Amino acid sequence: MSSAAESAEVLEAPDAAPKLKAMRLRLHAQHQSIVVMRTDCHVCRAEGLSQRSQVLVRVRGREVQALLYQLDDGLPPDTVALSEEAWRRLAAQEGDEVQVTHPLIIESLANVRRRIYGHRLDDDAMLSIVKDVAAGRYSEVQLAAFLTASAALPLDESETLALTKAMVAVGERLVWSAPIVLDKHCIGGLPGNRTTPIVVAIVAAHGLIMPKTSSRAITSPAGTADTMETIAPVTLSMADMRRVVGEVGACIAWGGAVQLSPADEVFVRIERELDIDTEGQLIASVLSKKVAAGATHVVIDIPVGPTAKVRSAEAAAHLSQRLTRVGAQMGLTIICLQTDGAQPVGRGIGPALEARDVLAVLQGDESAPQDLAQRASRLAGVALEMGGVATEGQGYALAWETLQNGRAWQKFQQIVQAQGGMRELPLAPHLHSLEAPRAGRVVYIDNRRLARLAKLAGAPESKAAGLLMHVRLGDEVARHQSLLTIHAQSAGELSYALAYWQGEADIIKVI
Amino acid sequence: MSSAAESAEVLEAPDAAPKLKAMRLRLHAQHQSIVVMRTDCHVCRAEGLSQRSQVLVRVRGREVQALLYQLDDGLPPDTVALSEEAWRRLAAQEGDEVQVTHPLIIESLANVRRRIYGHRLDDDAMLSIVKDVAAGRYSEVQLAAFLTASAALPLDESETLALTKAMVAVGERLVWSAPIVLDKHCIGGLPGNRTTPIVVAIVAAHGLIMPKTSSRAITSPAGTADTMETIAPVTLSMADMRRVVGEVGACIAWGGAVQLSPADEVFVRIERELDIDTEGQLIASVLSKKVAAGATHVVIDIPVGPTAKVRSAEAAAHLSQRLTRVGAQMGLTIICLQTDGAQPVGRGIGPALEARDVLAVLQGDESAPQDLAQRASRLAGVALEMGGVATEGQGYALAWETLQNGRAWQKFQQIVQAQGGMRELPLAPHLHSLEAPRAGRVVYIDNRRLARLAKLAGAPESKAAGLLMHVRLGDEVARHQSLLTIHAQSAGELSYALAYWQGEADIIKVI
Repeated sequence: MSSAAESAEVLEAPDAAPKLKAMRLRLHAQHQSIVVMRTDCHVCRAEGLSQRSQVLVRVRGREVQALLYQLDDGLPPDTVALSEEAWRRLAAQEGDEVQVTHPLIIESLANVRRRIYGHRLDDDAMLSIVKDVAAGRYSEVQLAAFLTASAALPLDESETLALTKAMVAVGERLVWSAPIVLDKHCIGGLPGNRTTPIVVAIVAAHGLIMPKTSSRAITSPAGTADTMETIAPVTLSMADMRRVVGEVGACIAWGGAVQLSPADEVFVRIERELDIDTEGQLIASVLSKKVAAGATHVVIDIPVGPTAKVRSAEAAAHLSQRLTRVGAQMGLTIICLQTDGAQPVGRGIGPALEARDVLAVLQGDESAPQDLAQRASRLAGVALEMGGVATEGQGYALAWETLQNGRAWQKFQQIVQAQGGMRELPLAPHLHSLEAPRAGRVVYIDNRRLARLAKLAGAPESKAAGLLMHVRLGDEVARHQSLLTIHAQSAGELSYALAYWQGEADIIKVI
Repeated sequence: MSSAAESAEVLEAPDAAPKLKAMRLRLHAQHQSIVVMRTDCHVCRAEGLSQRSQVLVRVRGREVQALLYQLDDGLPPDTVALSEEAWRRLAAQEGDEVQVTHPLIIESLANVRRRIYGHRLDDDAMLSIVKDVAAGRYSEVQLAAFLTASAALPLDESETLALTKAMVAVGERLVWSAPIVLDKHCIGGLPGNRTTPIVVAIVAAHGLIMPKTSSRAITSPAGTADTMETIAPVTLSMADMRRVVGEVGACIAWGGAVQLSPADEVFVRIERELDIDTEGQLIASVLSKKVAAGATHVVIDIPVGPTAKVRSAEAAAHLSQRLTRVGAQMGLTIICLQTDGAQPVGRGIGPALEARDVLAVLQGDESAPQDLAQRASRLAGVALEMGGVATEGQGYALAWETLQNGRAWQKFQQIVQAQGGMRELPLAPHLHSLEAPRAGRVVYIDNRRLARLAKLAGAPESKAAGLLMHVRLGDEVARHQSLLTIHAQSAGELSYALAYWQGEADIIKVI
């Protein structure tokens, strides 16, 4: 079988690989890049590509890793059909020459396997992984393995720092001329805790710089970006962000639209599907975005409660310490505030319903939820003190005054205008009231299951979907009094949420 | 927003959900069930289904969970296009009425999350997971999380037993009238160690029952099913297996074709993508299939070597103990043999190349690899002793004699005939010889990297692909003497393998 002739075989250079024509399939598969080729395609045979292979697709110098499906007919010969994501990332044009080959070997997966088996990762190993993740080379299975491994054996402080540095290194970075650049963050887990737009408005009203980027929901029914998007455009480019902050001193943008910490969005998608959110990933996610956004001072809200993400004062203290220490190593001054996480903040849970609360507070509406106004003022107060605008202990009063005198609302309108103008909030067509089964007092509210209920109702994908709360802890209610209203975009989602509520009647406990 | 009218809304019963027409897309996506619907489809709007949603698809009482993609045009209205896997699982016909809804909530995922965070799983929790996995309800991300969690914090003995029982419980089970039913297994990791067809032939030649099911490759360039498939059909139904074993006393079938331990094939796919293979999963995978196949006595080959799957005598002893103990709790008598795992067995690595070695041994070809013949005889000898055909210590001699006198070859031909008849082995068109860089002695062979090289050459997907070894440990070689020949189905795969070899010149060390 082994003959003298065989070693004389000439191998084709990679750029001599046979070319195909690009065709836009107009297939929507979210972030997934997909290519469809004919089952009898000669390139598949020549390259040894089979259905569900990971393939490397090249068009005019750009390349993307994609999942290959094969189709028996329905495609012209010598054609590669591309999903929307592949089309966008390749900036392809109809008829472009396309090369489809095996992807490169992903060397960093050896580090993922080592990590699964309990070996710690150093800076280089972590960077190798994050680089490949940001470049879109990891399959979902591989991403899930990395994230699960870093949850099963939690990242230690040195790995967390390594991950943070790697996540900053693979993205772009904003630089501001101001000596102090503020930022804030909330460690989620508390439905309706939508203080960011209010804090940004208060802080910027005092001339401080606050280029805020926010994420979409990870495991919650709404992220700040989801909520803010119902009020104004949040998909700002880096240039947009610079312009908006230059004009009005602040912005409230979706972090995923800019290439600040691009690996984060990839991780977040998988964490959402797994419904896990670990300390190391959380710290790296938060801090990498703050560093990349050019922040120098950050105030962090840590809600603590039995069903919040952080459940005890001790856990909050541990997280604060690690955030502060890793932050310091990244050059950030960080102040963490423990706040009450026993029940939802405001009345709405879900993007548009939370936006209503935010606008009511900013507009000084007398029915506005006071808990939201107070929490926002507390966080803004710390930021004003860090920014040198208020002396220590005076921040809260100044923040509250800035809300009352309308200056925060005025600044907010400027920000919204600079981002593209105010939108009308959507209203869901399917509403359903959930009633108290008996008269009594509200003694317990389960944040996690409320969040799940809101997600089943369609939040955050359906912007108008979610819950409108009518009661708070300690309230006295009559039998059949409404506890909350489910808002849903579709009958299917409403019935899905109702089925869950019927099985979990003690989400809100009345005794 | 909350009015008296809203609670009066009537919810549609699930079976009143709007219907669509089935269309066969002829899209090949391996095991992945995919449905494609129009972006403007009213069912998507009504149900709140968006791109990449997991959806539940129902056709005439059958249901399957699938991944939804959306297409802007190219589909008739009110149509759902189904991938081949969905089409097959639903047994759909063109134009069938199809219902597409949200899938049920997967309650067992809470157990996966608890396991990620270090909580052990009891029988019920494990069964809940395995049931949903076997039913196809887990996404790849969720499967990867479960498998990674059970690698990061390895399954303990009680979890391993729970997993084994669960994997048996969700599948079918064969029952035989014979008091002793034999089986064998090899703990992989050693390229070319294809003893199974030989052992089965020897054992069955003595009238013992051996209904062997084998798997395809997990992380190796060939599984026994891949190799045997180049010789004869291995995709036998339960009824086929009963008939073949009834006729000739044994079979060599692909386990994935029968519903013995159906969750195993799902796990194996993901383990292959992650290139991980953990003790607990391995034990449950092996034992669940043996129990389901109706075996009573099992001989297990554990190759030990520095680059084999099991690297030390201690690790092999630990694995033997656990296999024996868990096996006993499942009612199996198990004998484990530690064997030499320092270098590949036989000459071929890859399905068809290994099949050549197997046939040479069975046919008594004088050029047949003696190491393969001896290993197979050792394992068969233990089986003959367990089966009461040989007295203790006499099994090896009897097995060897059965090879030499042609009775094993005769029995093997009967088995092949009963399974559908002998096939012609494929030969790869692209061969490339790899030469010794210097004269000297072969002192080291890296099994893992050899396996990788064979996989890059296209094994096991390309049946003819792989490696043909020309040297063994201790051989003296001249400069430029051929060490091995790469066999590839395509030029792309050949160049892929060569690129790897050039970077890893010490896979075979000559000094």
